[in-house]
Amino acid sequence: MRLRDLGEFGLIARIARAASRAGVAGSRDVVLGIGDDAAILRPRAGEDVVVTTDALVEGAHFTWPTQDARTLGRRALLVNLSDLSAMGARPIGCTIALAAPPSLEADRALGLLRGVIDVAREAACPLVGGNVARATETSITVTALGAVRRGRALRRDAARPGDRILVTGQLGVAALAVARARRGRARVKRLPPLRLGAGRALAALPGRGACIDVSDGLLADLGHLLEASGVGASIDVRALPLARGFAPACARLGVDPLALALAGGEDYELLFTLRGRTPARGLAGRLGAPVTEIGRIEARRGLRLLGLSPEQERGLVRIRAAGGWRHF
Amino acid sequence: MRLRDLGEFGLIARIARAASRAGVAGSRDVVLGIGDDAAILRPRAGEDVVVTTDALVEGAHFTWPTQDARTLGRRALLVNLSDLSAMGARPIGCTIALAAPPSLEADRALGLLRGVIDVAREAACPLVGGNVARATETSITVTALGAVRRGRALRRDAARPGDRILVTGQLGVAALAVARARRGRARVKRLPPLRLGAGRALAALPGRGACIDVSDGLLADLGHLLEASGVGASIDVRALPLARGFAPACARLGVDPLALALAGGEDYELLFTLRGRTPARGLAGRLGAPVTEIGRIEARRGLRLLGLSPEQERGLVRIRAAGGWRHF
Repeated sequence: MRLRDLGEFGLIARIARAASRAGVAGSRDVVLGIGDDAAILRPRAGEDVVVTTDALVEGAHFTWPTQDARTLGRRALLVNLSDLSAMGARPIGCTIALAAPPSLEADRALGLLRGVIDVAREAACPLVGGNVARATETSITVTALGAVRRGRALRRDAARPGDRILVTGQLGVAALAVARARRGRARVKRLPPLRLGAGRALAALPGRGACIDVSDGLLADLGHLLEASGVGASIDVRALPLARGFAPACARLGVDPLALALAGGEDYELLFTLRGRTPARGLAGRLGAPVTEIGRIEARRGLRLLGLSPEQERGLVRIRAAGGWRHF
Repeated sequence: MRLRDLGEFGLIARIARAASRAGVAGSRDVVLGIGDDAAILRPRAGEDVVVTTDALVEGAHFTWPTQDARTLGRRALLVNLSDLSAMGARPIGCTIALAAPPSLEADRALGLLRGVIDVAREAACPLVGGNVARATETSITVTALGAVRRGRALRRDAARPGDRILVTGQLGVAALAVARARRGRARVKRLPPLRLGAGRALAALPGRGACIDVSDGLLADLGHLLEASGVGASIDVRALPLARGFAPACARLGVDPLALALAGGEDYELLFTLRGRTPARGLAGRLGAPVTEIGRIEARRGLRLLGLSPEQERGLVRIRAAGGWRHF
C-alpha cells in the first residue's frame, strides 16, 4: 500500500490510534491532544515552557535504501529531546510534520511514526499534534515542548571563568559508527542517547553553569557556549571520554580518533559547566550518566587544547580546515 | 547569491537580526529567544498553552515561478495563527523549520523569512527559534504557540443541539481568487485573514460553543466540528456570507458559486457555535469581524442544507463527488 491509498485523514487516524494504544496520546500535562485546531497543554504552576524544532530530510540526513523507517522515527524525536535535555526540561508534548511522496510505501510512513511513538513512550513525551503534506522527498520535522521550574532552565550563556567543563557519556561514538557504516560494516547510525534525567538533575544543581548538547561536535558546540557566555576555555584532550577500544577501532578504519572525538558530531551528549565545590565524582550518580571533567572556563577568549602530542597537533590543522558539519 | 553561499549559520544570523530589528525577537512572554538549544517562554499564571504545526511545501502548496517569497512567508505564519485564533489563544511564539536547496536564491529564502516576520509583527507573535536543512525542494514548517486562560480554549467538540452556527467574514473568497489565478487574471492567492482578536473575544463569551477555522472548506470543517461534538446541523445556504459581486464573478469564470462557498477551502474564517441569547448583531463589534448566522446545531447526526434551488441540488452532487481537497 502507498501513502496515497491511506490518504491524509487515514494517516492521521492511524497516528492518533497508534499514539493512543501506546499510551502517548496524553498525560497530566495534556488537556487536549491530536484532533483539534491545536493541542492544549497545561504546564504546572511556576513552570517555564521551552520549545525546539528539528528536521530530518531525505537526501540530507538519510536515504531510504540504507535507512530503517522506525530507527529514523526514533532519531527524529531523540534529537529534539536532546535539546530539551540541554535545557534541563521535562518533555510535555511534541508535534510531527511529515512530508512525503504519495508513492511512499505506507509501511515506511507508519514505521517512521512507530519510531517516534517508541521514543515518546520511553521519554513520556505525548504526541499531541502534527501535519502531513505531499512532497517529492520524505522529511519529518519534530517540535518538542518541555517544562522547567521558572528561571531554572539551563542556558548556553551562563558559563563563568573558573567553571569546570564536563561532558556526559563518551565522545566520537556516533562519528565512529558513521565511519564504520561508510566501510560497509554496519548499516544503522548510532541513535542519540536519552539524557533527559541528566539535564533535569543538572538544572536542579545549585552550582550549575551553562549547558549545550553536543550535536555538531565538541569543538563547534563548546564554541557556541563560549561565544554565548563571552568567555574562553582550556580543554585537556587526554581527559576526553572515549569508548574502550576507540583508538584501535579508528586505526583499523584509518580515521583520526582525535578528529572524531573533537569534531565528529551527533553524539548528543550534554556539555556543561559547574562552579563551586560540586564533586565531579558523585555527579554521575545524580545525573544517571557517566560524567567526565575535560577542562575549565577562562576569562581569556578562545579555545586552548592542552596535552596534544605533535602528531595530534598536525591532525588538528586538518580538523580546522575541514570546518565541521555544514547544513548547506 | 545562493543559499549555500550564505550558509546555515549565516542564514540563522540573518533571521535573528531581522527578527530583532523588527521587534519580534522577544516579548514579555519570551525569556529566551533564538540562539540556545531551545527557546524559553513564560505564559502568565493560570494560562494553558496551545500548539499547532503547519507546513507549506513546494510543488504541493506553491511553485516558485508563480509565488512571491514574502507572500509565501506571510501565508506560512498566517495559517498557523488561524489555528491559534480558532482556539481563542493569543500568540506567544513561533518557530520555523526551513528546508531548501543550496542553490535557492538567498533573496528567496530571506524574502520568505521577511514575510514571516511581517506577520509576526502584525500579530505580536515573537519568532523564537527554528531549523534550517538542505532539501531538493523548498518547504517551510511553522509551529505556533499560544496562551489562553485556563479551561477557556475553544474546541471542536463543544457544540450542543440548539447552538446557533456562525461564521466570520465571507466564504469562497479564497477559492474565487484561485479560480481567477488559474485563468491568468491574477497571480497571488488571497492571504488568510488575521482573526486572533475574534478568537480571543469568542473565548471570553459566556455562551460560546465549538469553534474551528475553515481551511478545507465549510462542508469539510463543519463536518469535523459535528463529528467531534457528536451532533448534526442544518445550514441555510441562502444565509452564506458571500462577497458583493461573488455570483457574477463566478459566472464569468464558469465556476459554481455554491461549490466555492461550501467546499472552496482556504478562507481561514472562524466557524463557531453560540448558545443562549448572545445577540448576533452586537457580535461583529465584539469580535472585530463581520459575523453571519448560517444555521443551527441539531441532535440528529448529518448535515442538512436548506434553501437549495433545484440547480444547486444538482451542483451539490458534483461537490460531493469531488470530495474536497486531498493532501495526498
